Amino acid sequence: MIAEFRFGVRWGDTDAAGIVFYPNFYKWMDDATHEFLSAIGYPTSTLYAEQQVNVPLLEANCQFKSPLFFEDRVTVRSAVVELHQKVFKINHEFFKDEKLVAEGFEIRAWTSFKEKPKSYPIPDEVREKMMPANAKAVNG
Amino acid sequence: MIAEFRFGVRWGDTDAAGIVFYPNFYKWMDDATHEFLSAIGYPTSTLYAEQQVNVPLLEANCQFKSPLFFEDRVTVRSAVVELHQKVFKINHEFFKDEKLVAEGFEIRAWTSFKEKPKSYPIPDEVREKMMPANAKAVNG
Amino acid sequence: MIAEFRFGVRWGDTDAAGIVFYPNFYKWMDDATHEFLSAIGYPTSTLYAEQQVNVPLLEANCQFKSPLFFEDRVTVRSAVVELHQKVFKINHEFFKDEKLVAEGFEIRAWTSFKEKPKSYPIPDEVREKMMPANAKAVNG
Amino acid sequence: MIAEFRFGVRWGDTDAAGIVFYPNFYKWMDDATHEFLSAIGYPTSTLYAEQQVNVPLLEANCQFKSPLFFEDRVTVRSAVVELHQKVFKINHEFFKDEKLVAEGFEIRAWTSFKEKPKSYPIPDEVREKMMPANAKAVNG
Repeated sequence: MIAEFRFGVRWGDTDAAGIVFYPNFYKWMDDATHEFLSAIGYPTSTLYAEQQVNVPLLEANCQFKSPLFFEDRVTVRSAVVELHQKVFKINHEFFKDEKLVAEGFEIRAWTSFKEKPKSYPIPDEVREKMMPANAKAVNG
Repeated sequence: MIAEFRFGVRWGDTDAAGIVFYPNFYKWMDDATHEFLSAIGYPTSTLYAEQQVNVPLLEANCQFKSPLFFEDRVTVRSAVVELHQKVFKINHEFFKDEKLVAEGFEIRAWTSFKEKPKSYPIPDEVREKMMPANAKAVNG
Repeated sequence: MIAEFRFGVRWGDTDAAGIVFYPNFYKWMDDATHEFLSAIGYPTSTLYAEQQVNVPLLEANCQFKSPLFFEDRVTVRSAVVELHQKVFKINHEFFKDEKLVAEGFEIRAWTSFKEKPKSYPIPDEVREKMMPANAKAVNG
Repeated sequence: MIAEFRFGVRWGDTDAAGIVFYPNFYKWMDDATHEFLSAIGYPTSTLYAEQQVNVPLLEANCQFKSPLFFEDRVTVRSAVVELHQKVFKINHEFFKDEKLVAEGFEIRAWTSFKEKPKSYPIPDEVREKMMPANAKAVNG
């Protein structure tokens, strides 16, 4: 499963140097993960409304290869590359036209917010849909 | 009661024209209102944690008189200027040094989020503390 | 000319009360104005790159009628309603399905950033395209 | 040199799960780097105004250990840990009271925006001030 998320750089995404303010890349990775979960049939709105489940971050990383400017059109391609019992790692590649401008990853935990936030095993039906051909399933 | 809230313009607050991206003024008005409520003894964190009460917006307005730049130091002076049964209007004046750079207002409703959001009369002990010398108390 | 701008509410647009944090409505009005200018043939990226012209705010207002939630799909309809010599007023109506959830306006000045920001008369070819059937052209 | 940057979590920093929306940690790392550069005598406002120099990102990483909530008071401790010819790596540790809640790093390049963005060697007088006792100076 590779999900695609497309967006245009907005005026407010830029800073006084004329390029995108870097924390916005993490907003877009967050958006891309929500798109990914929708694409496999588990929109986070439904997960949260029905089960108070969300997928908070353990770690996030991004490497910036070339700057983005106002009105650039960007595509993010997202795929799960590691699947642990309670945790998954999702990669995000940012393309402007066919050029890779940034790439990052997020490590997220399947977490119930019913009471105090607590991580749970990712359900099997979700795991199957997350799982791409080239992902590593990891014990533990 | 006039509360003061001070902040410095951050790099990410600017846009590609080199000035502050205008929606940030509303973030600062929101911050200033939270500061105001803390200053009168009703921090919104406590209100929300203990009573699920928050003060969502009915209307917000801002007039922009001169631009702000990265690292400008700004003071916001906030005062309640109208006090209705369930609703209050709070004015915010933005000063850079002693120059008025923007002024705005927010109209907010005292609202319980216990179930579906629902507005309630502002408690008397809160009203008294909100009330400045020159505010209008309004029936209804 | 009525331009339409569509977006979905993102996870990061919400706050701890579960509804959209209100300054985001101003970001969306800003986006909608950029969409409007693109739709009439004057994308702000081009205006800024070629002429260092931008359209900073003199005033912005929004009235909030019902809250927005994560993943709500929203349409903003934007039209210029007042056209002064250097300044225009643009209205923005926010619809969720066919329900009006918020409405606001922005007053913006046609401004050169070549040196110190300075407002200029809106060019005639732009005025014609901005002008809707029901707009008021105003002297001065 | 270890710089400290203090802030309080704002209402708009939270999301519908009631905790801080994670991209804000990167905004705070950005703020902390600007504070660091001010603290060593090179405020980025001055660098940019006088030399069109800024320090855009090559990479940023953050590990999230425990969630932050509205009105939490946080201190970020920042130190340069690697000093290359044109590039530096700065670590940021986030403390709530004395508890480490997150830690991250940014890798940034000394860059002129006079024309097309281009990286330059970090000036010696800046290097000396950046350099902590335990930093690695790296050739290349």
